[in-house]
Amino acid sequence: MTIQEKVRQLDMYSSAREIVSAHTDDTHAALDATFVPEKAESIWGDLGVGAVHDLNPNPEQANAIQKWVISHNRLGIPALFIEEGLHGYDTGTVFPAPIGLAGTWDPEVARETGAAIAAEARSHGVGMILGPVLDLARDPRWGRVEEDFGEDTYLTGQFGLAYVQGMQGETLASDHTAVAEPKHFVGHGSPEGGENTSPVHMGEREMRTEMLAAFEPAFRQGHAMSTMAAYHEIDGIPMTADPLVLKQILRGEWGFQGFVLSDLGAIRRLYEDHRVASSPQAASCLAIRSGVDMQFYDFDHAVFQKALIDCVHDGTLASADLDRAVRSVLRVKFILGLFDRPYVDPTLMSRAERTPEHLALSLRSARESMTLLKNDGNLLPLAKTTKHIAVIGPNGNIARYGDYEREANGKHVSLFDGIREEAPDALVTFDEGKDISAAVAIAKQSDIVILGLGEWQGVEGEGFDRTNLDLPGNQEALLEAIVAIGKPAVLVLENGRPLTIRWAKQHVRAILEAWYPGELGGQAIAETLFGDNNPAGRLTITFPASTGQLPAYYSADPSRVHKYVDDDGKPLFPFGWGLSYTTFRYDRLTATHSTLKSGQSVHVTVDVTNTGSQDGDDVVQLYLRRDYSSVETPGRELKGFTRIHLKAGETKTVSFDLPQESLQIWNTDRNWVVEPGGYTLWAGGSSEATLQTMFQLR
Amino acid sequence: MTIQEKVRQLDMYSSAREIVSAHTDDTHAALDATFVPEKAESIWGDLGVGAVHDLNPNPEQANAIQKWVISHNRLGIPALFIEEGLHGYDTGTVFPAPIGLAGTWDPEVARETGAAIAAEARSHGVGMILGPVLDLARDPRWGRVEEDFGEDTYLTGQFGLAYVQGMQGETLASDHTAVAEPKHFVGHGSPEGGENTSPVHMGEREMRTEMLAAFEPAFRQGHAMSTMAAYHEIDGIPMTADPLVLKQILRGEWGFQGFVLSDLGAIRRLYEDHRVASSPQAASCLAIRSGVDMQFYDFDHAVFQKALIDCVHDGTLASADLDRAVRSVLRVKFILGLFDRPYVDPTLMSRAERTPEHLALSLRSARESMTLLKNDGNLLPLAKTTKHIAVIGPNGNIARYGDYEREANGKHVSLFDGIREEAPDALVTFDEGKDISAAVAIAKQSDIVILGLGEWQGVEGEGFDRTNLDLPGNQEALLEAIVAIGKPAVLVLENGRPLTIRWAKQHVRAILEAWYPGELGGQAIAETLFGDNNPAGRLTITFPASTGQLPAYYSADPSRVHKYVDDDGKPLFPFGWGLSYTTFRYDRLTATHSTLKSGQSVHVTVDVTNTGSQDGDDVVQLYLRRDYSSVETPGRELKGFTRIHLKAGETKTVSFDLPQESLQIWNTDRNWVVEPGGYTLWAGGSSEATLQTMFQLR
Repeated sequence: MTIQEKVRQLDMYSSAREIVSAHTDDTHAALDATFVPEKAESIWGDLGVGAVHDLNPNPEQANAIQKWVISHNRLGIPALFIEEGLHGYDTGTVFPAPIGLAGTWDPEVARETGAAIAAEARSHGVGMILGPVLDLARDPRWGRVEEDFGEDTYLTGQFGLAYVQGMQGETLASDHTAVAEPKHFVGHGSPEGGENTSPVHMGEREMRTEMLAAFEPAFRQGHAMSTMAAYHEIDGIPMTADPLVLKQILRGEWGFQGFVLSDLGAIRRLYEDHRVASSPQAASCLAIRSGVDMQFYDFDHAVFQKALIDCVHDGTLASADLDRAVRSVLRVKFILGLFDRPYVDPTLMSRAERTPEHLALSLRSARESMTLLKNDGNLLPLAKTTKHIAVIGPNGNIARYGDYEREANGKHVSLFDGIREEAPDALVTFDEGKDISAAVAIAKQSDIVILGLGEWQGVEGEGFDRTNLDLPGNQEALLEAIVAIGKPAVLVLENGRPLTIRWAKQHVRAILEAWYPGELGGQAIAETLFGDNNPAGRLTITFPASTGQLPAYYSADPSRVHKYVDDDGKPLFPFGWGLSYTTFRYDRLTATHSTLKSGQSVHVTVDVTNTGSQDGDDVVQLYLRRDYSSVETPGRELKGFTRIHLKAGETKTVSFDLPQESLQIWNTDRNWVVEPGGYTLWAGGSSEATLQTMFQLR
Repeated sequence: MTIQEKVRQLDMYSSAREIVSAHTDDTHAALDATFVPEKAESIWGDLGVGAVHDLNPNPEQANAIQKWVISHNRLGIPALFIEEGLHGYDTGTVFPAPIGLAGTWDPEVARETGAAIAAEARSHGVGMILGPVLDLARDPRWGRVEEDFGEDTYLTGQFGLAYVQGMQGETLASDHTAVAEPKHFVGHGSPEGGENTSPVHMGEREMRTEMLAAFEPAFRQGHAMSTMAAYHEIDGIPMTADPLVLKQILRGEWGFQGFVLSDLGAIRRLYEDHRVASSPQAASCLAIRSGVDMQFYDFDHAVFQKALIDCVHDGTLASADLDRAVRSVLRVKFILGLFDRPYVDPTLMSRAERTPEHLALSLRSARESMTLLKNDGNLLPLAKTTKHIAVIGPNGNIARYGDYEREANGKHVSLFDGIREEAPDALVTFDEGKDISAAVAIAKQSDIVILGLGEWQGVEGEGFDRTNLDLPGNQEALLEAIVAIGKPAVLVLENGRPLTIRWAKQHVRAILEAWYPGELGGQAIAETLFGDNNPAGRLTITFPASTGQLPAYYSADPSRVHKYVDDDGKPLFPFGWGLSYTTFRYDRLTATHSTLKSGQSVHVTVDVTNTGSQDGDDVVQLYLRRDYSSVETPGRELKGFTRIHLKAGETKTVSFDLPQESLQIWNTDRNWVVEPGGYTLWAGGSSEATLQTMFQLR
């Protein structure tokens, strides 16, 4: 390849406006749009194309473009179509947002979701999806909490692995799998002030043992073939200029073979925001030199590509770095089979997209994600014989999807829809609650009030960071006014981040956290309210009592004090929390282990009994503490979990095998070691589990 | 020395209860108490004493103890008396708290304060004071903000240097100087959640360029002869177990020759909280091995001393480490002249303590610290002809001293006292404001209301961290009720940390920040209110608008976003802020420099004109940005300041010389370098200064 052909592979093209005859918006070709070769000729000439983005093509469009690209570069290198699809591909099935998906504590659902999104995307000719997000959500002020699997390293690691394995399947050279792109590499979920893209304050130990460890399974076991270098800096080093992370760890230590994409404009930020490069050229070359392989709308194509050529010529960018980047991109295209089968079967889409199976999966995910935070006096489940139900609130009659989903998509089953379906004999009334006195009047006529409150795009989502985590707008006032009536009231939350619902926790009898539950979410919520779905979702992120407690994550080091002069320092609801319509008991926690030999594991068992009168799921959680270690490690850390179904009265023995590497620490010599000594384990239904045992490694 | 004699030098004894005939509390011998040799015999035997603490002896007591110690150890090694004295020694002069002292922006006042405290302490036989505190106050939730010089590296460094130079004088072998002990080494002011002793999340670059740099002048230029290793961990490594900080940087890079004291119980925390040592013995030896030289009530004396002996014997503690610790302690005793002149002149105390000069210094410091935050319509200064003044609020008739000062000490000039003195012809009434309606009734009868609000020990101080930074208790309600009357109202704050006084900023016409202004603070406040003191204090810490904005410090890296969906991200009052009764104009900012040669500096000048009709001080502040650098550096950083007096209409040309090392960064190769390129400078009266110029280094 010539150097001009090489640098072309490292560039991504925003295509809706540029190469088709018509578009609906900046990211979508019109359905009947046709590829316009003249436009392509002027943009691409005969040097090929790295990636095509922001087109969301139908198969015919993708094939027409691909055909032109292949026949218009000397080596016949195909284009890679990349699109968003975090919890659903474009016009395809709308799945629950990741924070809800993780709330299922069921990685199998994540695996199937990844597979479904891939199948829908690939049927359009799209070979790579910009997800999953494996940032640890350590600051709820941050608007991107909903995109994450929560605050925990292990849980995020397991969900990331399952999602990637589902998305990439057995082979990427298929018609139903796609490249997964775990992001944002790395540490993006701890921004200063909770503000997106702000600096991250963190040492290498925390970065490695908490942040990188959340990504490691997706790369080392899941072989994710791409990643996205994040916007932020850590301790003065921007991620797109960090060879420790992008070269030494990702490629050197983990053997990553895919390519590293810049986050949109992250290379440009080296120049404009981080100010570690004094020109677009310097920024472009610094990024490639540091381990980034493809720009994402950072600079004009000509500026970026010329920069790399000039830097190779003047010696400020090694040919080896350029070649690494090119090889990485081409390898992904090869693995996708694009050289052998560059075109998509145009008849596949109608069979792959929005299938009954995918819709059923979305519903299953929503059902499993329902997290019952409070249920005083067993107010829930409600009787279907309830005569008059008032649904009140801005989230009562709209299906909230969260970010990275267009509100136009899907079936839109709202809470109000779901309740009418579940309780067909009841009179169900709705009021948005804008006028509180009108809402109160409606609520007064009802037997029970369901408050549909929370957040929505615009107070939440990327770029929508908050200083105040109370219910936004008039909702706290609405809630208080409705509860004051004295009717039984249930608070249903659809939101993307923990909210400081102190008043609600104290005064509302039942609270159901639904997150953004996808297009059939209203059905899942209603089934839960009426007992057709016994909730077993668990929080994957701590609910703080106030912004003044932040950061508030369960796995803090033990020297973290949790006691203020004006506050007991306790969260509203801890990590792992969630109630059921039945109850569970934990007994007989035991740990057996062999002597400390490489590869051996610690075998843990615990008995779990459904002590209530209803069948139900429980999420069995296993937490570990190193009693003493050479560096300070968390007071407790999740090391295993499994979601089980228990009939009323049934007991199951649940076992976990903790591989020795799950005990390792990164020591003061900057080595990974498993240290001998005592270890304490807790098993139970939340991070506050009290049943404990110990084991010793010698 | 035998090893038994050696380890004895590494221990500190809490003495009030143990070696004298009577004590007033745990930290004070009774004035007429006598030394009891039998007690000393049983505690100390014939092995000597490292340090004596918590006695606050009078000279006779100190001399009696010292005499016994010297004659009861083989080598005649004297004891070192160590006490608190952060902003005043025990029964001596009460100076403004450090956050107020720094608000003067006048290091000469810090130098004289350090000297005064040392003279008062040494006259009691005390040779070392536990201060100054050079933590950067980066989180106002933290209760120890008042002990700091604020949030800024350079300002803290200059105040630390001046204070240490004042305290240690030309020589420590004198009767009026004392060893300074800058603390808490290092990074203590950024605790997780704002909670004292909690983990610090920070990389080595931030630690070096911001936290350590604040200490560096005190050690490298000021030759402070002790320091205190802090409670917390950074990235998993507790400070008392961190040889990088205590050995490599402090001793190796900086040439520190003094001794490192543990913070009270910090070594014990290695075992009990950080859990990086599995026994008291292991914790003791780990600390000494890592660079700590003396324990501070960590473990029972016998346990600690035996641990070190056993570890030397079993090889887990090198003799070289033990000897380093012993040498460090003995060196300090030698430098203090204790081997030559172990006793204090008993007649000195009456001449050294609470002298008119020291009281005048306390008053000068208070006057210079007065920080006028708001003065709409020039409500201030008040006319002395005002007929009826109501002083309202819990801080109205009490002199608040802050932490590390007993409220029993000093002259107690309150705001109420000060106003009656300044306006002797006015009727001045006071109400504490507990009953708001009563306070309103009193305020209604007045011509002007002075609200004395803020904080006090118990909601503020060490261990008193807050999640909410509004005025505590009923004060926000009191303030709103008083302002609602419509009388002219002035808010005077005495407090130890920034408060989120959003309502006050919007609705109160004049706000004066007094911090904890020492025993004559009420006089300084009143003089300011009535115009006999033209205020020129400036904030050394940002006032955030809410806890949801935290951290909020002016020198954030430029990639920090300051814009929330529910908040503009701006502070209430920025770093460097403060008004005057006159006005100032800045012109003609210029920077000249030589070519980039080692040791050369950048010469900066700016003209400052008093454009008002009153004489007054201004604090000229110089901020710098590296336009581009190889690692991300702050958007602006204070690099020079000077407090000047200008007569009405007068212009002065102020110059600064920026040494090249003030431009250095710690680069990606972990070296200190000054990089060529463009630099921007701003000069003005706050961190939001707009007058700018540039210079280039080639």
